[in-house]
Amino acid sequence: MERWWINGEPGSKLDVTDRGLAYGDGLFETVAIRDGEPRFLGHHLDRLLHGCQRLRLPPPDRAGLAADLGATAAGLQHGVLKLIVTRGPGPRGYRLPAAPVTTVAWGTAATEPQPSRPIRIRWCETMASVNPATAGLKTLGRLDQVLARAEWSQPDVTDGLMISTEGRLIGGTASNVFLVIGGRLLTPALGRAGIAGVMRRVVLEAARDAGIAVCVSDLPPSAVAGASEVFLTNALTGIRPVHRLDAQAWSTGPVTCRLQEKLFAAGVTECAG
Amino acid sequence: MERWWINGEPGSKLDVTDRGLAYGDGLFETVAIRDGEPRFLGHHLDRLLHGCQRLRLPPPDRAGLAADLGATAAGLQHGVLKLIVTRGPGPRGYRLPAAPVTTVAWGTAATEPQPSRPIRIRWCETMASVNPATAGLKTLGRLDQVLARAEWSQPDVTDGLMISTEGRLIGGTASNVFLVIGGRLLTPALGRAGIAGVMRRVVLEAARDAGIAVCVSDLPPSAVAGASEVFLTNALTGIRPVHRLDAQAWSTGPVTCRLQEKLFAAGVTECAG
Repeated sequence: MERWWINGEPGSKLDVTDRGLAYGDGLFETVAIRDGEPRFLGHHLDRLLHGCQRLRLPPPDRAGLAADLGATAAGLQHGVLKLIVTRGPGPRGYRLPAAPVTTVAWGTAATEPQPSRPIRIRWCETMASVNPATAGLKTLGRLDQVLARAEWSQPDVTDGLMISTEGRLIGGTASNVFLVIGGRLLTPALGRAGIAGVMRRVVLEAARDAGIAVCVSDLPPSAVAGASEVFLTNALTGIRPVHRLDAQAWSTGPVTCRLQEKLFAAGVTECAG
Repeated sequence: MERWWINGEPGSKLDVTDRGLAYGDGLFETVAIRDGEPRFLGHHLDRLLHGCQRLRLPPPDRAGLAADLGATAAGLQHGVLKLIVTRGPGPRGYRLPAAPVTTVAWGTAATEPQPSRPIRIRWCETMASVNPATAGLKTLGRLDQVLARAEWSQPDVTDGLMISTEGRLIGGTASNVFLVIGGRLLTPALGRAGIAGVMRRVVLEAARDAGIAVCVSDLPPSAVAGASEVFLTNALTGIRPVHRLDAQAWSTGPVTCRLQEKLFAAGVTECAG
């Protein structure tokens, strides 16, 4: 990030007693900026505020935050906006502060959107933690993903698939995964592990809109080998078709193409065919 | 905490891009200061440096850090020292920075040691996350404990027992748990969830030294009801006998007393009989 704001003021320093640092007691969002606007901001704020509710974290004012982020994004053509919301500074101890003051920080950087080219991925050995209390949320505690991402350094491997400690397929380290099996679109249920991505939601909505049969359920890792199409989603990259995973190869299939077209029409310009 | 040092300099502000905040990518220690010295500092540094190794986090220099913390503690009679070590600031993304610069922060507060009185505890509904990659470590991602601790506000309930998503007894939100069953001392194995506490290690060493049979293993939550003695341990409080858990009551038993004596002799003055 090139510029940061803390609680609405320009700055990049946070108190060391902030519970976001102390306990991972907070949430974040990574938002694409396209043509000076934060893309799918409503979806991002939905997830953020849902997370605040589940964590009993006093939420920021939605309209005010949306206006602030919109004004920030207007200063950039294309880029990325990272938003961090924490339970704020507090005394030592897990106990919730009596009167928490939520920290809201955001930063931006200019980046050019990249076309969503087909990618090569791998399996990760590091597993995704299981906890229904935080599953689906983009909490600040992401050490699983950090350790999983540290498993490879080959530049041609874009992401790695993670399996939960319960043996279920969860998603990429920084993406959600979709499979096409028998013409149906499948993606893992995320009630026990994983993050419910904004682009995942956009894809699920686009699929329903396009009349593609959708199934969100527990999936074994072996489902991937049986898929006719595989793709990953992420708020900054849209849909990326998986063309290689270990020895297995795919080409971009018809369901993936159809969804890329739908997303392109919805403003995900990275999905240009 | 009343005073903080960041990378050896007085101060309490951290960069918002620090990976400790961004991803919980770091570790912490909470150390008792007694008579101007950090108690069991060797044990704390053992755990911290073991954690750095497992997280592939460039460790601070042990001797230098021990000297700095000793000098800091010398300014206090009794108190608490919190030490935070993170992978430092970095660009957005889970990928490890090419040249990470570890952040080392510590803070102190004066507090009087309290005698370890018998306590009342409860069961928590929030479960402890399972992940062998981080189990046993005191990582910065502690949202499970935060949510578990938020389940009660009664001041006479000191801590709550947590069960892992695999259904195993793990420990208190801010403590390790020990049971006495048939004269043997039992405590949960922490290879899949939980934090291997420094006072837990001290108690295990004291028990072996005292000829008490010790068993570290997976335990079902139901084991608690069958125990003749139950106690919790924490670096700041030593051994606290559990006298009440829901409808069940215990008094402080002979194994607990023997261990309290051993700990008192080892400098855990809170364990005065």
